[in-house]
Amino acid sequence: MKKPHIVILGAGYGGIMTTIKLQKSLNMNEAEITLVNKNDYHYQTTWLHENAAGTLHHDRTRIPIRNIINQEKVNFIQDKVILIKPEEKKVKLSEVELSYDILVIGLGFEAATFGITGLAENAFSIGNIKNARLLREHIEYNFAKYSEQQEKDPALLHIVIGGGGFTGIEFLGEIANRIPELCKEYDIDKNLVRIINIEGSSTVLPGFDPQLSEYAMNSLEARGVEFITGALVKECHPDKVIIEKNNKTIHVPTATTIWAAGVRANSIVGKSGFTTNKGKIEVLSDMRTPDYKDVFVIGDCALIINPENGEPYPPTAQIAIQQSDIVAHNIKALLRREDLESFEPIILGTVASLGQNDAVGILNNKYKFYGWKATVLKKIIDNRYLLKLGGFSLLIKKGKFNFFY
Amino acid sequence: MKKPHIVILGAGYGGIMTTIKLQKSLNMNEAEITLVNKNDYHYQTTWLHENAAGTLHHDRTRIPIRNIINQEKVNFIQDKVILIKPEEKKVKLSEVELSYDILVIGLGFEAATFGITGLAENAFSIGNIKNARLLREHIEYNFAKYSEQQEKDPALLHIVIGGGGFTGIEFLGEIANRIPELCKEYDIDKNLVRIINIEGSSTVLPGFDPQLSEYAMNSLEARGVEFITGALVKECHPDKVIIEKNNKTIHVPTATTIWAAGVRANSIVGKSGFTTNKGKIEVLSDMRTPDYKDVFVIGDCALIINPENGEPYPPTAQIAIQQSDIVAHNIKALLRREDLESFEPIILGTVASLGQNDAVGILNNKYKFYGWKATVLKKIIDNRYLLKLGGFSLLIKKGKFNFFY
Repeated sequence: MKKPHIVILGAGYGGIMTTIKLQKSLNMNEAEITLVNKNDYHYQTTWLHENAAGTLHHDRTRIPIRNIINQEKVNFIQDKVILIKPEEKKVKLSEVELSYDILVIGLGFEAATFGITGLAENAFSIGNIKNARLLREHIEYNFAKYSEQQEKDPALLHIVIGGGGFTGIEFLGEIANRIPELCKEYDIDKNLVRIINIEGSSTVLPGFDPQLSEYAMNSLEARGVEFITGALVKECHPDKVIIEKNNKTIHVPTATTIWAAGVRANSIVGKSGFTTNKGKIEVLSDMRTPDYKDVFVIGDCALIINPENGEPYPPTAQIAIQQSDIVAHNIKALLRREDLESFEPIILGTVASLGQNDAVGILNNKYKFYGWKATVLKKIIDNRYLLKLGGFSLLIKKGKFNFFY
Repeated sequence: MKKPHIVILGAGYGGIMTTIKLQKSLNMNEAEITLVNKNDYHYQTTWLHENAAGTLHHDRTRIPIRNIINQEKVNFIQDKVILIKPEEKKVKLSEVELSYDILVIGLGFEAATFGITGLAENAFSIGNIKNARLLREHIEYNFAKYSEQQEKDPALLHIVIGGGGFTGIEFLGEIANRIPELCKEYDIDKNLVRIINIEGSSTVLPGFDPQLSEYAMNSLEARGVEFITGALVKECHPDKVIIEKNNKTIHVPTATTIWAAGVRANSIVGKSGFTTNKGKIEVLSDMRTPDYKDVFVIGDCALIINPENGEPYPPTAQIAIQQSDIVAHNIKALLRREDLESFEPIILGTVASLGQNDAVGILNNKYKFYGWKATVLKKIIDNRYLLKLGGFSLLIKKGKFNFFY
């Protein structure tokens, strides 16, 4: 008899952790497991802002998939997902078509540019290893160009970040620390560099603890970051960004605009005919789609409403990792005809890094942290994940142990 | 009584060595010495190809001027020379005007683009720290872009070098060694990269020993370099270069064209009304201009015909450094009303590097070297210069001691 075929799409936080848990909990003869991913590596999305700023090399952020999966138990296919055909129980990749008995969709997010003129073409984003690395090189190239120019173009030294949410703020923290190094490398006067954050709300980190948001702004302002709150990006060009504040239009000359103000679920989900809400699949409490009992959704493609406030849970690594427990458990339960469990997120804590030696965080929804204590907390969270993912050897290879500065 | 004022323009090989020698040989009350240079550092022009390829950091190549001059004996002015007025014995800088009693012109070279369409605008050159660094960043940026592109543009991975003389060949050697590292850094298949050299003569290193030129081509071809000899660059665009060979036009798609096929003396020399020959000042045997007995010319701005073959001596570091002996000696002689000496170059040897672990060289016009012996010879030459320039402490700081690989 043919073994049931479990296909996992995407090796982000949700997909890779589901794979690791299944390879540990299932017997060899219970199922065939296939993991599909565009790249041959998993990466820590929450570290990309460091790669983009050039403060951490991208090879620290990515982990070869073959180093963490057991290839005797899991088939790995490096390919791109083109379409899911849930009626036929098939997945079309660019090279082959796969049939599945149980599917896990963990295809992550894309930048959402909301139709803002020129944003898709001209703004950089921090969403994967390749675009983070490109942003690092773009900034370095502009600094080198400025240094070599006879007639100096100040826009080469301006960096505009659209969005003061977690990604925007964490990138600001890193780039603010990186600027003095860049200025030394390219013989540039630090005072000529401008880092400007544009945020639609009246404060950065909207929805986060107001005291900690203010702490974050102060910490970044002290390092030269300028904030323009209550402002919207209207147009993005290769040499400037046009913003609107209080019904006034402001032109900011810049060769570097970074869009960190919106993500949406991978558009393959919508294209594949699933019922979506804000581009995501609103899953049942057991993490399956309402329409297909053999399809699980995890991470940024899954929508779960928090019953306490009627709002969706945020698309975080923390939640994706917690979901992988339930998805892996429920797949095993399906195979063994046992009862499925419900997902209940536990928000342990949230920490926003503000560069190598500052951070703000909140634990158990009540304890506030900032400064070095919060940076230590952040590193503990990161290291715990590595331990779960690849055990002690991975932790040693990729962990962050520079606790004190 | 006012001390005579010696002004030295340019801190290249000739200018800085003249300064160092004068500060050693003159008494404090004999003269006032002023050195003028655009940057606050001297750099080793013969190492720039390594900075441009990214195999050596540019801070290894440059030396802060204040570290090597004795500021009690030499005034250093960081400024740009705008015009020399030899009739008035004045030099116009962008900020001030200086009067001199004795002038040394050591303003070096510029790229000569011979009116080839688009070359000045679109080609990179390897002539100073800033444009070498820009070229390094340009190549890295293109590799990062290629990696991130959905629709790949192969021109981003093509590097075309116009000119197979010393600069071109030495850059080829470094970039050929650097490509595997770049491919690893940016996740690119090495086989997609093309490095193409365009040379007008039938062989590279024209005028050099034919056997060693062939050795150089073989060494570089073995590392993937393609040579198109007997070909001319006709046009340079941001995305391609157009060459002509055997009356046929070839379009080579490339985002990176490097022009290493021609230099001319700094154009300030011509603008300042000196009689020039090929843009240079043909100096007397004592290194002074025929028209002004108080003006010395050194390095790439000076033209000296080799009586043996009627050809000008090549514009090399070796010759500039030898000239500085005579210029410094003759300035002292002028001050002390002694006899001036004549310059007689001694071509000790010539070595062309082919990357970190290969080179070709000729010593005393007869002994041929290649492979590791030639690389050792090259490093000995480089280290001797550092020792002369800044003594043992500079040699230790900037010397090349990785003799064996």
